[in-house]
Formats: sequence, structure tokens, C-alpha cells
Amino acid sequence: MATLIGREIHLASRPTGWPTPDNFSLVEAPVPAVGPGQVLVRNRFLSVDPYMRGRMNDVKSYVPPFRVGEAMEGGAVGEVVDPGDSALSRGDLVLHQSGWREYAVLDAERTSALPPVPGLSPSVYLGALGMPGLTAYVGLLDIAGMQPGDQVFVSSAAGAVGSLAGQIARLRGASRVIGSAGTAAKVAYVRDLGFDAAFDYHDGPVSQALAQAAPDGIDVYFDNVGGDHLAAAISRLRRNGRAALCGAIAGYNAETPVPGPANLALVITKRLTLRGFIITDHRDRMPDFIKEMSGWLREGNVRFNETYVDGIEHAVDAFLGVFQGTNTGKMIVRLD
Amino acid sequence: MATLIGREIHLASRPTGWPTPDNFSLVEAPVPAVGPGQVLVRNRFLSVDPYMRGRMNDVKSYVPPFRVGEAMEGGAVGEVVDPGDSALSRGDLVLHQSGWREYAVLDAERTSALPPVPGLSPSVYLGALGMPGLTAYVGLLDIAGMQPGDQVFVSSAAGAVGSLAGQIARLRGASRVIGSAGTAAKVAYVRDLGFDAAFDYHDGPVSQALAQAAPDGIDVYFDNVGGDHLAAAISRLRRNGRAALCGAIAGYNAETPVPGPANLALVITKRLTLRGFIITDHRDRMPDFIKEMSGWLREGNVRFNETYVDGIEHAVDAFLGVFQGTNTGKMIVRLD
Repeated sequence: MATLIGREIHLASRPTGWPTPDNFSLVEAPVPAVGPGQVLVRNRFLSVDPYMRGRMNDVKSYVPPFRVGEAMEGGAVGEVVDPGDSALSRGDLVLHQSGWREYAVLDAERTSALPPVPGLSPSVYLGALGMPGLTAYVGLLDIAGMQPGDQVFVSSAAGAVGSLAGQIARLRGASRVIGSAGTAAKVAYVRDLGFDAAFDYHDGPVSQALAQAAPDGIDVYFDNVGGDHLAAAISRLRRNGRAALCGAIAGYNAETPVPGPANLALVITKRLTLRGFIITDHRDRMPDFIKEMSGWLREGNVRFNETYVDGIEHAVDAFLGVFQGTNTGKMIVRLD
Repeated sequence: MATLIGREIHLASRPTGWPTPDNFSLVEAPVPAVGPGQVLVRNRFLSVDPYMRGRMNDVKSYVPPFRVGEAMEGGAVGEVVDPGDSALSRGDLVLHQSGWREYAVLDAERTSALPPVPGLSPSVYLGALGMPGLTAYVGLLDIAGMQPGDQVFVSSAAGAVGSLAGQIARLRGASRVIGSAGTAAKVAYVRDLGFDAAFDYHDGPVSQALAQAAPDGIDVYFDNVGGDHLAAAISRLRRNGRAALCGAIAGYNAETPVPGPANLALVITKRLTLRGFIITDHRDRMPDFIKEMSGWLREGNVRFNETYVDGIEHAVDAFLGVFQGTNTGKMIVRLD
């Protein structure tokens, strides 16, 4: 049998500030042979996510950095093409972390077949039924402790996590849900998802837009952005308000530290709680989440948009696009 | 009976930035007659506290602002000189909020006699057994959720709240307690109280001093200061660390907003919680606190320093001194 050749994206060099295509390379490499206890999958959908920017730095963080000259990693849904001696079957779909490449060899023991979700693409396991969905669920309900009747503000509300956080808030009884996004089309999309109000943060100071959208203040802020958004939310949070700090995309590509909010003294006078979290600590919530979210998806109560970019040769464009806001909902690289 | 004349401190004008003696006036005024259900007390000890700076501004906050041209308010221990028709007796000591004056007329119904504390001045009810003590207790145990084995950092560790927070941490099983203070003498005092390490924040960047004092990091930060101290603590907090935000004296007299910490992204990656609180929300903890703290004081396990300034004519100096750090422990104005 001829050696199988697969394409994969390597980290070519570490970026300073905004990453550029030069920091990546598309490499053809022989796919390793399938050994005992292994399976070969052909990837169908690759996830590109903001957190991956952090792994491009040579900094020990909550996940180890990518290595220069090696394939990058990330969530992916693949199709089993050689089940080896495992219990899997050819054609089974599996979720794994060997993304950014066309073929992957996986440990069969740590791989199980995904149940199909009627009416939805298997890529849903990278979005609404995957880490972004769990992030929205845990951040809103466990970290921010949202209660029925709360007024909730979500930034990056057209994004994968934000669009789900707002919809979960509504379904769990929030009295008002407000979202921010970066284009007029995204604002329309966010309203269409059922948010009570939405604004384009390019239209003026976030603090003003939020004050108009939430005249009575907010109780919960789901932060995907940091920077001005966090400061505006602190100003707007009511007594005993809570912010779940999930992401700070505003600063991911900054070359020098971004000053923090100048209104932190309000955290004291308004008895606020700001709490950061990393979703991998909360895998124990996956069963509850899957049960509740599957029901919402099945009944059409949650909608989830995916932006597809086709072909591994465009994976880098897709990733860089996340920082420019070219996606609505989850950005997915789709392979043939 | 001749009308009784008492001296009291009025707010003469609202300060911009640092308050000056010109913002206050010492006024002689007739003491109101004691009506039915009222008692007359002569104040013995007046409390001056950093939070009163906020009440000098014309800003609605968690307590209403002082009024220009009227007597200021604050905690005081007074001695009953006319019990009227109440159950109190002449000579009883009472705790109340009509400080900043020599005489006060109080509602008897809301006033009860303080039990004497053997070996301690009755002013202990303004400090170790009063709001500063409760603040230290609740902030450390409830807000920051300190657990045995935690490493704890306390700023303003020679102050009323900070000196108690550090001692409570030790008594409740902290594995290491670190304090910061503003003079070499205060640092020596803090070490003498049983803190494992202490530093003078004037000796260099707080972040460096804290890194040396807490080489393994910290789990809990009790913040009385804000500013550089908070940023340094965020850098030093370990995974799942917690900060109780109690005060931000660094910014109380600032005329323009002070930028927040530039390292807030660490709140996410290290899963930190920053939580503000106001002690008046937590009066329900007073019985537990009094029981535990009384025992510690009785057994000599908690030491508490008071800095006395004598005479109401020096009350303003005492108050302004709190911002300059002229006190070690609780600043008290003592009246004859």
C-alpha cells in the first residue's frame, strides 16, 4: 500500500501582535501507519478558535504552547477510514483534538463514535454541542450564577459562545438579554436570535450604547471581549451583579499591556463579582449540558449559525478571520 | 437648667482631590433637649475611617453623602449622661453613629448598653470588636473563602482592618500570611503581630516585593488599597485564587480615574475571583464574629493597636492622618 500523504498546518514562527499568514505553513507529510489500538480518521470539520492565539506564544498558560515547525492542534470531527483492531467502524464520526490536518491517527481507547444529530451537521459537536456550547452554559449558569429575572449582557453576541449564551439566558428566564456585535448585519442576526436589544460597538462608546440598551442596568455580564466592554459593564452592573470573564479578545493581539478598567472601585461599592473561568475545568457539566442543549436544538429553541470556510489551504484565513469578525456564529473549516 | 453647648465637626465644603482642614469647621451648637424615648450621651471615643472620604462627595453611593453645613456622622462610643425615661442608666456605654460631636441625643429604643471588655478600652467596639473587625472577618472568611493551608496577602496590614485580617488568617489555619505597610516601623509591627512576612511598599515595586515575600504565590488577597497592590496580587494569585475587595484607598483622593490593572486577562487564565463587599450587608455575621473574636482577644491570640488623638479640635487632623498613614491600627479620637 502506497504511503498516504496528508496536508497539515504548521506553526512556522511565533507572531508579535497580530498573526499573519507568514506565521503558518501548509505542509504535506506522510500519515503515520496505524498501529495496534489505533484508528485512522479523515478530518471532515476543523475548529478554529480565538484561544488558539494564546497557544502561538511561547508562554506557559493553561494549555501548552504550539511548537514551531510542528502541526497545530485543535478540535475536529473526523470520519474513521481505518478502524484497525478497534470496535469502531469505517464511517463512524469521532470528535478529537488532532485538528489543523487532513488525516489523524488516534488512540482507539480514547475515541468513541458520535451519535448523529438529526437535521444538523456533525460540526455541531464543535459548536452548539461542543466546547463553545458548554462554555456558554457553564459561564452563564455556574460562573455568573444567572437567575430567572436577571438582565443579561453578552459581548461578541454573534459569535459561537455569545450567541448561545444569550439564547440560554432567554430560555432560563432572563428578563432582558442584550448583545453587542461588530457589524450591522451581526446586530440584525443577534436580534433575530431573540435578544431583546443589540448594538454595534463601532457606533459609539460602548458605555453609551449599553446605557441605552439597558436603561435599568444589568445583573449579569458574559464577557468575551474585555477592554471597553468590561468597563462599560462594570458601570452598568447593579448591586450584587456578576461578570463571567470568558475571553478578552480585545487584548489577544496587543503588543503592550492594555490598561484595565478605571472604574474598578465600583466593584466594591456595588458588591460585584468578577470571575474568570476556563472551560476544561468544567467537563463534569457535559452530561447536563448535552441533555438540555440537545432538547433545545431538537425543539428549535436554540439556533446556531456556522460560517464555513472550505479546504485546509484556507484554514489560516479562517483563523485570522475570527479576529477580524468575518464569522457569524462558529467558524468551521470544512474538508471534502 | 442652662442650655448645654457642644462642639461638633461640620462639613464646610466638598473637597476636590485631597481634603484639607478648610473643608471642615468646628462649630459650637446647643445640644437638643432630651425628649420622650431619648437619651443624652457624652461621646468618649469617635471613629474616623477611610470610607468617610466618599461621603464628603456629592455622590449617591452605598451611604448617603454628608451635607454641607451640617455635622458629619460616624461610629462613636458614648456614655449616658441623661437616660431620660429609658431603661439605660447614667454611666452606661453605648455604640452609635452620631460621632464627630461631643454630645448626641439618641433614640433609646435603638440603643443598648455595651458589656465591658476586661482589660480593653471601650473603644474596642470601634475596632477589634466593631465594624473593622467584622470587615476583616467577613472579607477573609466569607468573601474570599479562605481555607486552612491558604497563603494570604493583606495590604494596609498595619491598619485597623488589615492587622485583624492577617491575625484571623493565621488563627484559621493559613499556611503563610504576608502583609504590606507604609513605613519601616509599621512593617516591624506587622511582623510582631505574627505575619510571616511583611514589606514596605515604598521600598520598590509592589510586584517585586510580593514575589519575594510569596515565592510560591498566594491563594487569597485581602485588598484595602487597590492600584498597584491589586495588580501585583493578580500576578501572584495561584489558580482558583480569590481577592476580597474591601477598599481602594489609593484612589479615594484621585481627581481623575486611576487606570485599572493591566493584567486582568490573568483573571481568566488563572480562574480568579475578584469580589467586592460592603460590611453593612453582613450584619447577620455579627454574633459569630463577636463570639470568636472575643475569645481570641480574651486569650491574647489577637492583638489590636489603637492610635489615639485627643480632643475634638484634633478630629480633622486624625481623619486626614488616616490617608497619610499616621496611624498604626485603628485611629480613634478620644474625648475627655
